[in-house]
Amino acid sequence: MNNFAENLLSLVDSKKERMIEIRRYLHAHPELSFEEQETAKYIADFYQNLACTVKKNIGGYGIVVEIDSGKPGKNLALRADFDALPIQEETGLPFASENPGVMHACGHDAHTAYMLILAECLIELKEQFSGKITILHQPAEETPPGGAIQMIRDGCLDGVDHVVGCHVMSGFDLGTVYYHTGATQTGRATFKLKVQGKGSHGSMPNAGIDAVLVGSQIVVNLQSIVSRRVNPFDMTTLTVGSFDGKGSANVLKDAVFLEGDIRMMNEASRTLVKEAFEDTVKGICEVYGATYELDYVDDYPVLMNDQRLTEFVVNIIEQHPFTELKEVVDSGPIAPSEDFAYYCQERPSCFFYVGATGEGQVAYPHHHPKFDIDEASILIAAKTMATVVSEYFNQEK
Amino acid sequence: MNNFAENLLSLVDSKKERMIEIRRYLHAHPELSFEEQETAKYIADFYQNLACTVKKNIGGYGIVVEIDSGKPGKNLALRADFDALPIQEETGLPFASENPGVMHACGHDAHTAYMLILAECLIELKEQFSGKITILHQPAEETPPGGAIQMIRDGCLDGVDHVVGCHVMSGFDLGTVYYHTGATQTGRATFKLKVQGKGSHGSMPNAGIDAVLVGSQIVVNLQSIVSRRVNPFDMTTLTVGSFDGKGSANVLKDAVFLEGDIRMMNEASRTLVKEAFEDTVKGICEVYGATYELDYVDDYPVLMNDQRLTEFVVNIIEQHPFTELKEVVDSGPIAPSEDFAYYCQERPSCFFYVGATGEGQVAYPHHHPKFDIDEASILIAAKTMATVVSEYFNQEK
Amino acid sequence: MNNFAENLLSLVDSKKERMIEIRRYLHAHPELSFEEQETAKYIADFYQNLACTVKKNIGGYGIVVEIDSGKPGKNLALRADFDALPIQEETGLPFASENPGVMHACGHDAHTAYMLILAECLIELKEQFSGKITILHQPAEETPPGGAIQMIRDGCLDGVDHVVGCHVMSGFDLGTVYYHTGATQTGRATFKLKVQGKGSHGSMPNAGIDAVLVGSQIVVNLQSIVSRRVNPFDMTTLTVGSFDGKGSANVLKDAVFLEGDIRMMNEASRTLVKEAFEDTVKGICEVYGATYELDYVDDYPVLMNDQRLTEFVVNIIEQHPFTELKEVVDSGPIAPSEDFAYYCQERPSCFFYVGATGEGQVAYPHHHPKFDIDEASILIAAKTMATVVSEYFNQEK
Amino acid sequence: MNNFAENLLSLVDSKKERMIEIRRYLHAHPELSFEEQETAKYIADFYQNLACTVKKNIGGYGIVVEIDSGKPGKNLALRADFDALPIQEETGLPFASENPGVMHACGHDAHTAYMLILAECLIELKEQFSGKITILHQPAEETPPGGAIQMIRDGCLDGVDHVVGCHVMSGFDLGTVYYHTGATQTGRATFKLKVQGKGSHGSMPNAGIDAVLVGSQIVVNLQSIVSRRVNPFDMTTLTVGSFDGKGSANVLKDAVFLEGDIRMMNEASRTLVKEAFEDTVKGICEVYGATYELDYVDDYPVLMNDQRLTEFVVNIIEQHPFTELKEVVDSGPIAPSEDFAYYCQERPSCFFYVGATGEGQVAYPHHHPKFDIDEASILIAAKTMATVVSEYFNQEK
Repeated sequence: MNNFAENLLSLVDSKKERMIEIRRYLHAHPELSFEEQETAKYIADFYQNLACTVKKNIGGYGIVVEIDSGKPGKNLALRADFDALPIQEETGLPFASENPGVMHACGHDAHTAYMLILAECLIELKEQFSGKITILHQPAEETPPGGAIQMIRDGCLDGVDHVVGCHVMSGFDLGTVYYHTGATQTGRATFKLKVQGKGSHGSMPNAGIDAVLVGSQIVVNLQSIVSRRVNPFDMTTLTVGSFDGKGSANVLKDAVFLEGDIRMMNEASRTLVKEAFEDTVKGICEVYGATYELDYVDDYPVLMNDQRLTEFVVNIIEQHPFTELKEVVDSGPIAPSEDFAYYCQERPSCFFYVGATGEGQVAYPHHHPKFDIDEASILIAAKTMATVVSEYFNQEK
Repeated sequence: MNNFAENLLSLVDSKKERMIEIRRYLHAHPELSFEEQETAKYIADFYQNLACTVKKNIGGYGIVVEIDSGKPGKNLALRADFDALPIQEETGLPFASENPGVMHACGHDAHTAYMLILAECLIELKEQFSGKITILHQPAEETPPGGAIQMIRDGCLDGVDHVVGCHVMSGFDLGTVYYHTGATQTGRATFKLKVQGKGSHGSMPNAGIDAVLVGSQIVVNLQSIVSRRVNPFDMTTLTVGSFDGKGSANVLKDAVFLEGDIRMMNEASRTLVKEAFEDTVKGICEVYGATYELDYVDDYPVLMNDQRLTEFVVNIIEQHPFTELKEVVDSGPIAPSEDFAYYCQERPSCFFYVGATGEGQVAYPHHHPKFDIDEASILIAAKTMATVVSEYFNQEK
Repeated sequence: MNNFAENLLSLVDSKKERMIEIRRYLHAHPELSFEEQETAKYIADFYQNLACTVKKNIGGYGIVVEIDSGKPGKNLALRADFDALPIQEETGLPFASENPGVMHACGHDAHTAYMLILAECLIELKEQFSGKITILHQPAEETPPGGAIQMIRDGCLDGVDHVVGCHVMSGFDLGTVYYHTGATQTGRATFKLKVQGKGSHGSMPNAGIDAVLVGSQIVVNLQSIVSRRVNPFDMTTLTVGSFDGKGSANVLKDAVFLEGDIRMMNEASRTLVKEAFEDTVKGICEVYGATYELDYVDDYPVLMNDQRLTEFVVNIIEQHPFTELKEVVDSGPIAPSEDFAYYCQERPSCFFYVGATGEGQVAYPHHHPKFDIDEASILIAAKTMATVVSEYFNQEK
Repeated sequence: MNNFAENLLSLVDSKKERMIEIRRYLHAHPELSFEEQETAKYIADFYQNLACTVKKNIGGYGIVVEIDSGKPGKNLALRADFDALPIQEETGLPFASENPGVMHACGHDAHTAYMLILAECLIELKEQFSGKITILHQPAEETPPGGAIQMIRDGCLDGVDHVVGCHVMSGFDLGTVYYHTGATQTGRATFKLKVQGKGSHGSMPNAGIDAVLVGSQIVVNLQSIVSRRVNPFDMTTLTVGSFDGKGSANVLKDAVFLEGDIRMMNEASRTLVKEAFEDTVKGICEVYGATYELDYVDDYPVLMNDQRLTEFVVNIIEQHPFTELKEVVDSGPIAPSEDFAYYCQERPSCFFYVGATGEGQVAYPHHHPKFDIDEASILIAAKTMATVVSEYFNQEK
């Protein structure tokens, strides 16, 4: 281990209490996507007297911090997201959300906490590496179109060579770091569909157009997109999660509203599904003489971890273990979508996971009102990322 | 025309203003099915000093009035219903409903108005016929299980030979009386169905049971009951009027609620549909591993007008026209259900219609907030029924 | 009974053996629709020396015989069909079909037998009535477009006032004559549909278009035409009788062939079904990217018995019973289609049924290889029609 | 390269003409699965005077050849299949099939040709390695239950440590060897289903049970197994390749026959699909009152290449290239099923592919009447396998 790495890990370790303080403060003060004004101010204030460049309002409330060693070298970006969710917290924690109906139920408080401290350490040690480090404090990860794409449009990746990020994961073992190469998290699209039929008394169906039936046939026919239209090797799901057609028992419903969600592990499925979806809705409405309004929105891409960078990162972690790290494991692809995927489209990037459920702990899933993490995972995230950063610059030489 | 008939028509005619007064009073004071306490009191009070027997609280708020000529003969029952609907009136009439959200939007006010006056006339002239007349003031026609079946259980048909009733009809021509023999109005059943699946994130459908899909397949498969399972000569409809499955776009819905309505013109369809319905729900749930709770309720039977009595009634009307009567027409069967059907199951009965839309009038449908009748139809109903009653006893001799 | 009627019935009765001989000869020598060359020759030869006008090759092999009394009056047409079916007879009768694969399995042999003898009698007695009788010996009733429409185009109804016909019916009681007014037999349409998808190995469904699935969805969606699109009071059926999609288990079928049949009791359903059918096929193919070739053919109309003429005919029969006649009964509408319906479109017409199954006999359905009639029904048909004819001219005076 | 390897490759190269002769002879004399009597005799005869042990009739026509070095060591099995397909050859080759309707359209002729020569070489050089080599000449790969499982039951793997096999592949580049670790080819199940309804005239659907409709609903509902019931990350397909329901247009079909095929890349899908399949058929038949007979057969498992052995084999090939070898590439998983999978269940095994389409050649797919290989692929197969064998024993020391 080189000196920079050693010094960095040691410095991070010395500030672990503050990481937890910051996380708890943020946890108590969550803000919804695109409304993270106070959190952004908190982050910007943190850097006030530190030797770095801070750009605010990048892609909304995004903050880009540049740590320049003053020496030539690569520019490595580290990303941490900071928005929360529209959930009423039920953890009963002493530092539980003070904002009713809003909760850090996905661990972005932990991401920001470790990243602020790590950045502070890197600023303090910036003489010890050669190149630049760009910290991406990103808002609005939870809500498409998301903060990443906006920050990219505002130039947050200018001059950046690689992007690395991580996520603390409930249900994943504390002490383990997980990774996957290639297609790692799903791409996504969502839809809202209004099917317009025509009301009529139930005993005179011929005078109406039965929107409940048309909607049902759409749901049934949509099943064939996954079963017949996409490559069976490419994970794809299409879910109609909402069928809003409440009405009177004896009256043909005049209109129903469907909402749903598509996931895919290969962008090739995206176009296939979209076209087949529209064909299905159009064709079924034509069968029954109904009309429709469809709002079909592509959002986050498939998150493609760069193979070379990911293998590089994994090798670093495996070859430079620290006390709290037990194992590095291929998680395989996982279903949720992440707007880190947009960075992957722009630069060779790597997104990995830090297990956050200690032995014997109950793991409520992400987005659950009782979601929580083992706070030891924050230090592990910080040290893992510190290792990656220090060796990135070390091996680059 | 015999004297009784002549006298009765003349007496009825002389009281036509009072019929309209009564109708307007009732129209202004509507009460919902099973809650017609004040209306029942109004009706009972009407008979207070008249020479008849009045039984109250027959099958709920039902009132049975017996007009006994004191001479031997048949016992003819006449039925008028008196409940109103949960509708906010929008007619703007000076005598519009004074009870918010409740409205006589089906003409039962007119039925009761003409029947009270006709009864009064029959009581005055009871020396002129031989036999008995039973007036059935029936509550709760609009809401299954309805008032008729309750009144029958309480003995309202004891000693009765035949039952006759009529309905004023918006959209049918004023001056015309309509009839049909045999199956005249539909029988009905209704259902409430809960389909219980299992929630899951949309990207992990295999971890759940998609209640929206199961409900949709039920709706689709139910179509085959009418298309393949019932006799195609027997009018039958099955409508799923409500599909309550509102949820999150990206989550498999754990449960959906369906409600609907079945109509048939032949009681043979009733059992066929019921069995096929249950087979469909059970089978589809089995396909998907879902469970269900089904509340399937048979209510009003097919209204079967007795052929001999109906031809008898029609002949009477055709052979004893009065000024306001222009035509007697076979309406064919019509779709709505009527609990007069229960009387038909017990006694040879006849239910006919009195057109209530004058030339050039706008005909809002029954149960519409702007529903109204041409009040001239009340006198026509009274005179038609008066003719039927007088000739019934005349020809019976 | 007038003299003409009496004489006619008596003359018909005297020739009853010959009717059976003729029927047996025809039964042994059946010919398919549009190929009845020998039967037509046999019929024409029958009239060779009789005092009537015979026109051959009217609408194909049709024969029109005019029996002119020479006196003014109405012109009544009587129709008898004479084609057979592509069925291999299995009755074991001594006079069973001598033409392999062809059989009089619908009683047209009986129709022709009674009509020839009745015509002969009418010619013999033509002095006794005033007016004309037109005998329509019609080919090709079994196969659309049928012989009736062709004969009409060739002028067979020129000068005719009314048309009467009858059918011997297996499963209907011998001795009973059945009738119905208004819509009496169904109208019909048929379709042949090729659904063109694209073959592919079963493990690569995305490379093909699954014609079995597309065909199945068409079958499923077609159910809603009867359940939701047509008037539920109008008997309508739509059957996909053939789904020809045999293939390899592990290969997506490239094309499937569907055939089916539509029946309706109200011509209003015809257009509704046709449009909805095409919308269904087009829409579903659009959903799946398949194409199709549809051959949808309207054929026989709803057979509409003229109300006045039918009541007239029924009254005649009821008021002039003969020994073998036991009852006259309203059969209600029945499902099979008949091209007699075309005559009904041109002239007030009446088509009735003559029961042909004696007590205790097994009644194989029409078109069954063991179909047979009680030959006593032939005389009943002749006498019933004789009664109708004689009273038609008698009452017309 | 050790001497054994060098000598083996050189010896193989010297016999390349004979390989092609053998392949052409076999190609001209193909035999169907389970009927490969003459081919088996040809193979056995080949070994007649060679220094090895030959066991015949192992699992049917299987032949197991043991090449024993007489020295201790591992026992490596090499597998080559030798059955042909029921296809009428259309290649026009001078050595095209002489057996009408039977063709080596999958390259098993090439497998057997290279394996015989390789075995001969190994026998000649058996002093140069330590251990045993077991040659598995396997019949009936094309037709479940297949020859592999039978040979295993007859003990062909007794004493064997590892199994290696390869397949020449049309459409894969000549000169390239392809491999994949883990799930490499699909597992499979097949089904034959009879749906028994009840015939009836199309105008009386209520008298029958429409088997075409029931079959169609089964096809439609089966789509949800792939779309909702299996893990979306696990490639799974379910194809109804045959829907045999040809009948009369106007008659409800009494029974239909469905056949199809299921593929999966994870054995976990097998049970899920099977259970869901049976639930679907049972549930839908229950909906419609139909019955069924289902013959659902699991056959070949998922072919799981052992990770360690496959990496070992790939390393050997990459590190010991020969002239004709250009590249070694991960093919990813591929869809077809292979009964080599049974060996994988018993021993750590590796199955790889040898590209057989030269540059600019037209690649007809396997099982196509014009299927052919570039015969240079035979030598490549032999040399690749020779390299694997020699290094297997070399590195094992």
